Amino acid sequence: MASVQQCPAPFPPSASPAATVNPWASLTIAETVSIQHWLEAPERGLNLTRAVDSSLPDNVIFMIETYYPPKEDAIAYLDNPGTVEPPTKYARVTIHHGDVPIVRDYLVGPLPVGQSTTMERLTDIYHVDDIPYHAAGYASGNEMATVISKITPAYEDALLDLFGGVAKGLPNDTLIAGASAPFSFDGSFRRMWVNFKRNVAGPFLHPLGFFLYIDYSGTDPSLWSVLKVVYNHQVFDSTEDFLNALNNGTLERIPHRPDDDNTDFSWTSRRKVGVTRDLDHLPGPRSVSFAGLRFRVDQATQYVTWMGWSMHLGFTRDMGLNLWNIGFKGERIIYELSPQEAIAQYGGNDPFQTTTAWLDRFFGMGSSVRDMLPGYDCPHEAVYLPATTYGATGSVTRKRAICIFEQDSGKPLTRHAGWMNGEFGAVKGYILTVRSISTVGNYDYCEFFDYTFHLDGTMEVRISASGYLQGGYWEPRQEGYGARIRDTTMGNLHDHVINFKVDFDIAGQKNSLLETTTAQEEVEQPWFDDDWGKTVMQQKITKRFIDTEDGALLKWPANFQGGYSVVNKDATNSWGYPRGYAVHPGMSSVHNTVVGSKRLLNNANWARYNMAVSKRKETEPSSSSMWNMNLPGLPVVDFHKFFDGESLDQEDVVAWINVGMHHLPQAEDSPNTKTNVATSSFILTPLNFFDSDPSMESANAILLSVPTDAKGVFEFDDYGVQQHLTCMPSAPQPFEYTFATQHTVDGEETVLSVEDMRKGMESYHRIKVEL
Amino acid sequence: MASVQQCPAPFPPSASPAATVNPWASLTIAETVSIQHWLEAPERGLNLTRAVDSSLPDNVIFMIETYYPPKEDAIAYLDNPGTVEPPTKYARVTIHHGDVPIVRDYLVGPLPVGQSTTMERLTDIYHVDDIPYHAAGYASGNEMATVISKITPAYEDALLDLFGGVAKGLPNDTLIAGASAPFSFDGSFRRMWVNFKRNVAGPFLHPLGFFLYIDYSGTDPSLWSVLKVVYNHQVFDSTEDFLNALNNGTLERIPHRPDDDNTDFSWTSRRKVGVTRDLDHLPGPRSVSFAGLRFRVDQATQYVTWMGWSMHLGFTRDMGLNLWNIGFKGERIIYELSPQEAIAQYGGNDPFQTTTAWLDRFFGMGSSVRDMLPGYDCPHEAVYLPATTYGATGSVTRKRAICIFEQDSGKPLTRHAGWMNGEFGAVKGYILTVRSISTVGNYDYCEFFDYTFHLDGTMEVRISASGYLQGGYWEPRQEGYGARIRDTTMGNLHDHVINFKVDFDIAGQKNSLLETTTAQEEVEQPWFDDDWGKTVMQQKITKRFIDTEDGALLKWPANFQGGYSVVNKDATNSWGYPRGYAVHPGMSSVHNTVVGSKRLLNNANWARYNMAVSKRKETEPSSSSMWNMNLPGLPVVDFHKFFDGESLDQEDVVAWINVGMHHLPQAEDSPNTKTNVATSSFILTPLNFFDSDPSMESANAILLSVPTDAKGVFEFDDYGVQQHLTCMPSAPQPFEYTFATQHTVDGEETVLSVEDMRKGMESYHRIKVEL
Repeated sequence: MASVQQCPAPFPPSASPAATVNPWASLTIAETVSIQHWLEAPERGLNLTRAVDSSLPDNVIFMIETYYPPKEDAIAYLDNPGTVEPPTKYARVTIHHGDVPIVRDYLVGPLPVGQSTTMERLTDIYHVDDIPYHAAGYASGNEMATVISKITPAYEDALLDLFGGVAKGLPNDTLIAGASAPFSFDGSFRRMWVNFKRNVAGPFLHPLGFFLYIDYSGTDPSLWSVLKVVYNHQVFDSTEDFLNALNNGTLERIPHRPDDDNTDFSWTSRRKVGVTRDLDHLPGPRSVSFAGLRFRVDQATQYVTWMGWSMHLGFTRDMGLNLWNIGFKGERIIYELSPQEAIAQYGGNDPFQTTTAWLDRFFGMGSSVRDMLPGYDCPHEAVYLPATTYGATGSVTRKRAICIFEQDSGKPLTRHAGWMNGEFGAVKGYILTVRSISTVGNYDYCEFFDYTFHLDGTMEVRISASGYLQGGYWEPRQEGYGARIRDTTMGNLHDHVINFKVDFDIAGQKNSLLETTTAQEEVEQPWFDDDWGKTVMQQKITKRFIDTEDGALLKWPANFQGGYSVVNKDATNSWGYPRGYAVHPGMSSVHNTVVGSKRLLNNANWARYNMAVSKRKETEPSSSSMWNMNLPGLPVVDFHKFFDGESLDQEDVVAWINVGMHHLPQAEDSPNTKTNVATSSFILTPLNFFDSDPSMESANAILLSVPTDAKGVFEFDDYGVQQHLTCMPSAPQPFEYTFATQHTVDGEETVLSVEDMRKGMESYHRIKVEL
Repeated sequence: MASVQQCPAPFPPSASPAATVNPWASLTIAETVSIQHWLEAPERGLNLTRAVDSSLPDNVIFMIETYYPPKEDAIAYLDNPGTVEPPTKYARVTIHHGDVPIVRDYLVGPLPVGQSTTMERLTDIYHVDDIPYHAAGYASGNEMATVISKITPAYEDALLDLFGGVAKGLPNDTLIAGASAPFSFDGSFRRMWVNFKRNVAGPFLHPLGFFLYIDYSGTDPSLWSVLKVVYNHQVFDSTEDFLNALNNGTLERIPHRPDDDNTDFSWTSRRKVGVTRDLDHLPGPRSVSFAGLRFRVDQATQYVTWMGWSMHLGFTRDMGLNLWNIGFKGERIIYELSPQEAIAQYGGNDPFQTTTAWLDRFFGMGSSVRDMLPGYDCPHEAVYLPATTYGATGSVTRKRAICIFEQDSGKPLTRHAGWMNGEFGAVKGYILTVRSISTVGNYDYCEFFDYTFHLDGTMEVRISASGYLQGGYWEPRQEGYGARIRDTTMGNLHDHVINFKVDFDIAGQKNSLLETTTAQEEVEQPWFDDDWGKTVMQQKITKRFIDTEDGALLKWPANFQGGYSVVNKDATNSWGYPRGYAVHPGMSSVHNTVVGSKRLLNNANWARYNMAVSKRKETEPSSSSMWNMNLPGLPVVDFHKFFDGESLDQEDVVAWINVGMHHLPQAEDSPNTKTNVATSSFILTPLNFFDSDPSMESANAILLSVPTDAKGVFEFDDYGVQQHLTCMPSAPQPFEYTFATQHTVDGEETVLSVEDMRKGMESYHRIKVEL
């Protein structure tokens, strides 16, 4: 046995950012605790109650979070970290004023809390002054259970009779409830459609086809009521009417379900089925960095570098992972790259699906991030970073919220085979991925946010989705609204659209929006002969600067004959073109199908386009807000208001870019949708930003010399990189998974019950009755 | 030091196909030799001359190749290999009848050659009876050199004067020529535009802006002539006129080129430039199958299996790699998957680019496949398969024509995080890739044909391109036709469109074409209250069978609101839907921009659409032919003729599917275009083919159990697969690269000169003068 060299352990080499403070760092638990206590101090006069002890008319802190600094301050610091101080720190605080009731946002700072700390209303980033209470988030998992549990006792017999199910708040309840959204149009009411499902693994695929429309406006539960009861297309205006029909035998019953449907729920489990395929008992291939990892991570500042790229990471309750000050080869390309909102609008022939238009920011796509499954969610060599989010009932810290890994793309980035010396060679195609996975409620999707970086300055932003469909009760009258995926279960037709903010800084902050289109022309030239005629048909490019926001709500042209880029007119490459970055559609580049629905009237207007470009403003930090979901008629952030004719001619501009999927469900979506087909992306790629392809700097490359002797062997230059290095890789860490760490709002480490954690996770997509 | 386990070597386990004969196997050299000799026998009366000894009026064998058997025969054998004989073997033979002159195809068989072997005209797969001589391929690399060399002597002084260059047929010639295509419209003439370039690495980016239009119709070189000379937008009708203008000083000269442009050609080399990036001196991550490869290969029959998939491979001169009898989980999904043609149509303000419309089949995308660069073109563990193609001057055998490898996609195929037992887990996403790379001429592109297979029955067909642009001479009057990429070089605007044949057999041969569209509806329902109004806006799906070929020339709908699938009405899944496969657009799903150009009048009509579906016929095996390039007015295969109103209602149907790219060049295309942005794909995915997701069979998966104790650790089931296995991987083989093996048409192994190999490779994109 030969002597064996152990490979370097897959720990990332350290990075040493010149900026030792991350201006977008999340607040630490100590920081939120100090702010919490400062807010609770009597001199603030807020009359606060802790969420865990609160009832609806109480005043409760819903959120305490970093408020991102002005760009000017952040850049001043980042560009001169030795001489300029980091930006002053502020927190955004959301308080549910149950006593009004109203929701308000505040800015608290400077931080850390001290003599000069003040609190002021935060309104300039919103388009309404006071946020209607009916759009509020839920401070605890109990709020929805309270509503449901008030209603269900009257239905106990009916649920048993019609569905053989129990929803009594017992540990062995066989039914659970779920709600659809939006809850309100303009804040004047709060109403939800509730459906019932089997309380089994994958309950979303076991709906019963029984619906209640509940008004739970205001803070006085005694005023809440059932407005409609719907069963088998029969509509009743009250619980009493429905029960009368049931009891007097006039209720038309849903045809008998196959027995399997009431007893065999295994098909919605993720447990392996069937015969293991040939050789699948062996582990598949695994990526190994035999000479050690090639990306650097500074854990303290969540700063990452790789092959000329550099970036800071941030993380929010609303949307999770975001990326800041993305540089390539020493220049800032993007100041901010952050997801903004994710909508899912459904269709169906039942009151639940037809009224569903989720805006997932409401639920907290960041707070819905769970620890990843090492080796499954990310390759074995991935490096994980933690994230902490504040919640009204306590903070959650996930040690594996974000993963970072390098991969061989499997194909060379560039390559040519030629018989002239200097022509024949290849550059290997490596990619760095920064990923986070959010499981919103657990109703429907895990969403993979992948930010991938390429050697040539190209980035891809890609979403992939998996998880359970929002299933409907299948009956022939549902035809056209999706597909039957089991005897009495269907997947309902829906669109996903997800919006990203890309704050480009191309060779500086002042940039312009360039539209490029191609069209056919017929042109006559003096050099043609008679044989082919005097004219030729060919393509020609037209370039046009879109000078103001008025023209900057954009769709891809037919057949993708044209596109958009952000360029700097004042900085040209050596060949005279403004340096720029182009936005290319990637997989499934679509916008929302439905336009004008009252349930998405003005709260997600960005979804009407493939992308849009506006002038950057500190008062327009985001295209949405967590309250937008429930205010389609009175959106807290009204995206169209960003577009008020301002100049895009050498201004600091922001691109709002969408990915999306038209999801027409099919049998293969069961039990879970698949990330290989449910995926969408856009690509940001240098456009005359350089004078030539910068990936030609790569040392993981080869150049061949053509032998002069025809029998000869090619000589080659591999730039001294040991592609054939082998050594003994350390075994990946044994798989382990534990609950995330919880802290109370006082900062004490705590252990929630499994049921409480579950409630927090499943939100109101799986509401268990509590009596 | 611990005891070390050596990993299994990355050799593929053997496969044992029941069919021990591959009905699509290429002819062996022995077979082509025997056919060659049979054809040359005096009793055939063909009066043949060997290509190496031939002049134009001679009769020459251009091609000898397997003719693929009738589907019925192949399937009868494959489905009953023990009892049914393999299909009778035939060869397709192309003869250039220089004495007419005309080109004809013949069927020769049965094979092996024997008493019963006969020869008959092969015309029923073509739309013209006799193939015009002016559309013929070049039997040797000398043919074009002969044309150019006849012309250039008159220009020697001019080339030296205007460009300081020499094209005299000397070893140190500093200029070379190149030609554009098509050469003919309907076969009545043969004419080409020739440009001149620097004879350096990447000559395609060093054009001079000097053009000759040459008539070389017929087989008598004494009748060939220069029809136009174009320099700096001045057009001359003869060499004499041009030389007069040059000599009498009336020629307006192109403005002085920067000195660099005449001396520094290094920017078109693939040699590494710049400073090596941080950590790039280390090799990047490498994929290792620690427990051995998981796909099987039978080298003898080029049969591959992986995770339920199985297929045979074939290889042709015209289009290279093709796939046959693709099965998944024991059922044939696709009978044939094969590339058909690749067009590239250019625009420009010079006579060369404006008239260029390549159809790469002419050049032989299969014969243009070179040995791959192990570890660069495919990952280190890839398994390579060889391919041999016949050529008039001899056969070429590449030992690494095709590569096959498995990869971890880096993301789970399905995944859900849930707090209910049975919900929380992931299936790892592995992909098998079958790849071939064709470098056509060396004018422009390496094209990567990637066929990738997924665990759920999904396939992606993807093209990626790299290589040199077809550069033009930059001057301001070229604005709109591309981009300047150097002082006097531009990349010209062009479209690529590549057509694939997909002969689906979904649960049998009889299938139908289903169109699915989605649109917005406003619908009233009894269950609505007054709050949101009595109606809702939502999406609805419409399905329609396209019953005949008349409606089957298809484009993607706006915003991809709908799509197409091939389904079997007579075979439904358990939920009542016809079993099917959907075609999804992948990256850059575009069709050709220019419609109606005389240079692509009717020879590539498939490129007008995203896809088309026709009834399968033995007489319509391909959407193109190698002669189509030069016959836009009289195409040998006229795709539109396939669409003659025949039924698509439960017939054997073929989908003709396109990928493509609008290539608007930019500085970063220099020196070579990049495969990450120059890529296009389509996806074939089960559509209610199964009752649920078959990838749930995967053992490379995990299922977690939620602890009942909140402090607890999750239990999990990894199905016994040793994801954490480690062992000592064998070092990849040291890099080596040698010329492919050459055989004469007599079957003798031979060694060509480097210059001859180069000529064969570079075709007429780099024509060196020979005097």
